[in-house]
Amino acid sequence: MANREGPLSGLVVIDLTRVLAGPYCTMVLSDLGARVIKVEVPEKGDDARHIGPFIGGKSAYFSSLNRDKESIALDLKAAEGREIFDALLARADVLVENYRPGVMEKLGYDWDSIHQRWPKLIYAAASGFGQTGPYRNRAAYDMVVQAMGGIMSVTGQPGAPPTRVGSSIGDITAGLFTAIGVNAALYHRTQTNSGMFIDVSMLDSQLAILENAIVRYAATGTPPGPIGARHPSITPFAAYRTADGYLVIAAGNDSLFAKLTEVLERPELLNDERFTTNDLRTQNVDALSLELEATFAGKSTADWLSLLEAAGVPCGPINNVEEALNDPQLRARNMVVTMDDPDMGTLEVAGNPIKLSAFGDPSTRGPVPDLDGDRQAILDWLGTP
Amino acid sequence: MANREGPLSGLVVIDLTRVLAGPYCTMVLSDLGARVIKVEVPEKGDDARHIGPFIGGKSAYFSSLNRDKESIALDLKAAEGREIFDALLARADVLVENYRPGVMEKLGYDWDSIHQRWPKLIYAAASGFGQTGPYRNRAAYDMVVQAMGGIMSVTGQPGAPPTRVGSSIGDITAGLFTAIGVNAALYHRTQTNSGMFIDVSMLDSQLAILENAIVRYAATGTPPGPIGARHPSITPFAAYRTADGYLVIAAGNDSLFAKLTEVLERPELLNDERFTTNDLRTQNVDALSLELEATFAGKSTADWLSLLEAAGVPCGPINNVEEALNDPQLRARNMVVTMDDPDMGTLEVAGNPIKLSAFGDPSTRGPVPDLDGDRQAILDWLGTP
Repeated sequence: MANREGPLSGLVVIDLTRVLAGPYCTMVLSDLGARVIKVEVPEKGDDARHIGPFIGGKSAYFSSLNRDKESIALDLKAAEGREIFDALLARADVLVENYRPGVMEKLGYDWDSIHQRWPKLIYAAASGFGQTGPYRNRAAYDMVVQAMGGIMSVTGQPGAPPTRVGSSIGDITAGLFTAIGVNAALYHRTQTNSGMFIDVSMLDSQLAILENAIVRYAATGTPPGPIGARHPSITPFAAYRTADGYLVIAAGNDSLFAKLTEVLERPELLNDERFTTNDLRTQNVDALSLELEATFAGKSTADWLSLLEAAGVPCGPINNVEEALNDPQLRARNMVVTMDDPDMGTLEVAGNPIKLSAFGDPSTRGPVPDLDGDRQAILDWLGTP
Repeated sequence: MANREGPLSGLVVIDLTRVLAGPYCTMVLSDLGARVIKVEVPEKGDDARHIGPFIGGKSAYFSSLNRDKESIALDLKAAEGREIFDALLARADVLVENYRPGVMEKLGYDWDSIHQRWPKLIYAAASGFGQTGPYRNRAAYDMVVQAMGGIMSVTGQPGAPPTRVGSSIGDITAGLFTAIGVNAALYHRTQTNSGMFIDVSMLDSQLAILENAIVRYAATGTPPGPIGARHPSITPFAAYRTADGYLVIAAGNDSLFAKLTEVLERPELLNDERFTTNDLRTQNVDALSLELEATFAGKSTADWLSLLEAAGVPCGPINNVEEALNDPQLRARNMVVTMDDPDMGTLEVAGNPIKLSAFGDPSTRGPVPDLDGDRQAILDWLGTP
């Protein structure tokens, strides 16, 4: 319960969130130094405690999202639970929840009531579709918002079945936008002494990350489709097959393309009228791929990468998760941190990508709480008998 | 130049960023009310001004990232440019850049120098690989970090060629983490009166969004591969073919699976011993898909969606960009905003997904600045003759 290091040190977050979008947000807040108290449903707790994979009988999935948090189980429909919850809110700076809209209202903890009782409290709600609009009462999961928000329509191979982004970016981006909102509201509170309500939806967040697909549609009137592993308007900027696998290159301008042709010992490509500008290379992307892969086939990925790196052509291997976790740069950046757990042993999880000069970046994170595991310490802190 | 509404209203951000990760971050800060002054290279400006698609001779790509910002062109290698830049930093709250590490040092604007001269200034650097570590001097592009960070290894169809996530989430997530860092540092500054340096890398950000792929590797020792459009451990949670296209469903628990079998009028699936629990459904995912698609083939996507919605089974269409932009929920949430531009006409771009009770959410955003277009107004504000 000691204040941890970080810009949000000393702040208390009451965390009603479950599964992914909300817990991801409060993990970011915890990594920034806030004290995060999970308020969980008695007996069952956060649904993610029951989602695999399991290690030593414990959800590794839950663990990867809830390190360094505290837990108290409260029944918000019972008087005793509500009394403790009220005492928590009275001490808290931020409340985060990711229930379906309406649940908090039914419990009497809608924004208007909360703001009246605790005017400095910041209240952030992450939901599938948001607190307003025709779909507000529908349940959403990552799969649904990835599909509806458009990103699946531009991800995958042309003509192949639909492809989901392989991590739950519907949840994660909503968690990130919510974390931005909370931090901005914390700053604003120092100017006004007042909290505010933050309403972030997973579907909205998907539209917000569609990027150039929106303006490509605006420019052409045609919705863009999936194009595999290449960039729609920069060429060569794609994955290519080598003698033993694949590599990616990102030769984003004429000078990098010239360097690439040197590394490949294919000087004639530089003067080939199909490839003299980025626009022409993009128009003739398939022809260029054939030419490049004919040469890439002659050496291994590792050999090509060392030649390309030496020449300063942006490139990289397509790492699997094991290779990424062992990447020297990610290790040097402390992006793989450990958690010691009595049941799971030492678990490696992703670190905090926000590196701050004013604070350290611990390579070990505190364990996940047992359900209700911090009850007595929290009650003592509240002064509740 | 009037202060806009938002929690960061009154704050000034000096924006040296180019292309995507940095501009995305400062767009978020601008949407939160900060005044963002782009400091661009004379004549050429932000590289994104020259990246297509173009509408009316202007980059729609640049426009979608730089609405509501101001522009001044400064040569930071010349005395006059540096003098104005220093005056800007003296007035600013935040400096954001996304140069390759070392560029700012060469210009004399490394963190130590900046912090000594302007101790309250917050300085955020978004880069490909970060300010430290063995790859710090390498150039990275979205394609490279998507490949190296592991997300491409879990995105795509099994056995098919590598698949990139169809928007530049390498850049965008780095922009989001940088925006979180800036906001947290702004809060912290109110407690300490001191700025800090924020170092975010695109590669780190990719590891931070890998989510359950990391713990699946930890639990099994085997790096997970791509699995198309389904969830690795929740079933049925995938895209399915219908009579006229596809839909997605996310039946994340037994009760939703029961509802699904009712909608499909396939009660026998509920008692099929292969499908009685989520774990069994995941083990027998291909058999279940065959059963479900046999039935889904009998009606159109629209027909199934209305039946599934009525039954409360989370589901959705796979929208293309046009369909997403016209989705009633996204429209109701003001997630498609307009920008009026003298050359491009009215351009629709993504809105701000952070909805705040204390502030409005304008449905029209200010236009992008011409290169150096705000020079005189900025100089007047600085009081420079």
